[in-house]
Amino acid sequence: MPQLRKDPLSIGWVVISSERGKRPSDFGTGRTQITKGFCPFCAGNESVTPPEIMAYREPGTQQNTPGWSIRVIPNKYAALVIEGSPETKGIGSVYDYMDGVGAHEVIIEHPQHDLDLEELTKEHRKAVLEVYKLRIEDLFRDRRFRYIQVFKNHGEPAGASLEHSHSQVIAVPVTPTRLKEELDSARLYYNYKGRCIFCDILEEEKREGIRIILENHHFVVFEPFASRFPFETWVIPKRHEADYQDISDEELWSLSEILGEALLGLRLTLSNSPYNLVFHFAPARYAHAGYWQTLDEDFHWHIEIIPRLTMIAGFEWGTGFYINPTPPEEAAHFLGTTVRSKEFLDRILITS
Amino acid sequence: MPQLRKDPLSIGWVVISSERGKRPSDFGTGRTQITKGFCPFCAGNESVTPPEIMAYREPGTQQNTPGWSIRVIPNKYAALVIEGSPETKGIGSVYDYMDGVGAHEVIIEHPQHDLDLEELTKEHRKAVLEVYKLRIEDLFRDRRFRYIQVFKNHGEPAGASLEHSHSQVIAVPVTPTRLKEELDSARLYYNYKGRCIFCDILEEEKREGIRIILENHHFVVFEPFASRFPFETWVIPKRHEADYQDISDEELWSLSEILGEALLGLRLTLSNSPYNLVFHFAPARYAHAGYWQTLDEDFHWHIEIIPRLTMIAGFEWGTGFYINPTPPEEAAHFLGTTVRSKEFLDRILITS
Repeated sequence: MPQLRKDPLSIGWVVISSERGKRPSDFGTGRTQITKGFCPFCAGNESVTPPEIMAYREPGTQQNTPGWSIRVIPNKYAALVIEGSPETKGIGSVYDYMDGVGAHEVIIEHPQHDLDLEELTKEHRKAVLEVYKLRIEDLFRDRRFRYIQVFKNHGEPAGASLEHSHSQVIAVPVTPTRLKEELDSARLYYNYKGRCIFCDILEEEKREGIRIILENHHFVVFEPFASRFPFETWVIPKRHEADYQDISDEELWSLSEILGEALLGLRLTLSNSPYNLVFHFAPARYAHAGYWQTLDEDFHWHIEIIPRLTMIAGFEWGTGFYINPTPPEEAAHFLGTTVRSKEFLDRILITS
Repeated sequence: MPQLRKDPLSIGWVVISSERGKRPSDFGTGRTQITKGFCPFCAGNESVTPPEIMAYREPGTQQNTPGWSIRVIPNKYAALVIEGSPETKGIGSVYDYMDGVGAHEVIIEHPQHDLDLEELTKEHRKAVLEVYKLRIEDLFRDRRFRYIQVFKNHGEPAGASLEHSHSQVIAVPVTPTRLKEELDSARLYYNYKGRCIFCDILEEEKREGIRIILENHHFVVFEPFASRFPFETWVIPKRHEADYQDISDEELWSLSEILGEALLGLRLTLSNSPYNLVFHFAPARYAHAGYWQTLDEDFHWHIEIIPRLTMIAGFEWGTGFYINPTPPEEAAHFLGTTVRSKEFLDRILITS
């Protein structure tokens, strides 16, 4: 079974995947290779995947057969497993570990092989966003899980091992480092100012007006002031809300629209470059009853899209700093030009 | 001039390199390309690099001409620049930035093009390690700098843009996030236990004996318990010491020996895979007079070597967790087999 080991020199954890036990000769070029040819995610190939957890499907069609529009399955190569107990055990005075307990699911976004998330209809993409919400609600019922990481890897250099458009969900039994940094910063800010830092960021972005790309009734898309990566792009709801799963139906429509536009804008500007997309929302409340009681007031869910255009090298690993060769104001200028272009407007019309 | 911008949602900083201002079309495949053909770092090509900061050279030879064995030059594409003031300025209530002040140097380790650090003689590599020490001492004289990151990128996927073996030094005006995590963890441990966490890690590693690869009079090489990456390898001095620059001449010999062995062991085990190598030691004392007064007791310098064999994807970006498919105990087994092999012993003999 996989193990979660605590890094004694940080607040971070590492998943040690002992079952996969990769040997030196297994690494090849060190880069994920997209598997070509037969696609286990295409309609008709349901029998080669693990049985589905849920699916949106035509009435009268059988589980694990064609007829679905969105399909959720366990990841065949799961990083964490469902059996086990999230109790830490110690070794000597410095090391701590626990069972690698968690859940790892794949959301196949469409039965057809060559349609990316931004190429789906607004309605279909809304249904994908609704499936995220349903999986988060369901997985948070398991009280061993402290966070549900929803993410998407697009393209080989972003870690995708299959071309067919899909998202992933990993439930983890500890609050992730990166989320904790955001929670702590938001908490500090709230304690000092009495306001949500994300709401203040939105205000400041509107005031400056140089990093916002898109805005609709419920959402804003912008390039963060301290973008770690060129064309890093955030999608944030205007309504203050810590939990993604509390999104309304009207907001889901609005999010489907603006996320489709943001991804299409990036695709056209950056020639369909690889990217990672991650959701950040509040962790499980029961696990943080004391410390996180004001979470509703100080945290604010959002989506971070990270195009993979630059390398992470020694300086970044050593310091935790990033070197970004494209100021977010310039990235916003390029993306802004794209989303006002005829090609963009023509393609958006097709999918709405 | 480059800007340092504070991420309002973490303790991290981002270098926004406005001068380089990369446009969408500049990114290509998103991967660093090694420049082939003419090499500016080879002996005889001194005139195409910026003038040297220091060099070890044969008596009687002129600066910026052949005759050197190790040469330090400013990085032609510096991430940070020497002019400017490290004072933070605010924008609105949420954003902070400062001039991108710092220093960025390249240490060319040998005049010959095709010799890697582990292929140098023990004496030559000792001189490289001594140059690190001299550059750290010199740069810490500039009171604007809080940390001097010494690092090395080997191979294209690790971010190296030139093949000729070289290291880099970047002086930064803020304590780096990743170092601060280690400093904070070591401080917490020291406050509770009254002992250095690194010394206790060494004790625990000796007790368990399953992750140590190499040991000599002054150093130990091991795979960390919570290795973030397959074959992550640390080199740590047995003598408790926070500052690398206080290394003795005898320890430099010992470090040259064991670092050469560690890199050769990794090279033979992993078919000369790309890696990043980073130094962690105490930040500038004058910047931390109050809080870091016990730094000598609770921090312990070390080297982290990170082979680049796996991908960083959405889960890692979203959570800050890592998935390592090779348990450090197995990595130690493979590396241990290598360093006892005839091929390894034959090659070590050549360079000692």
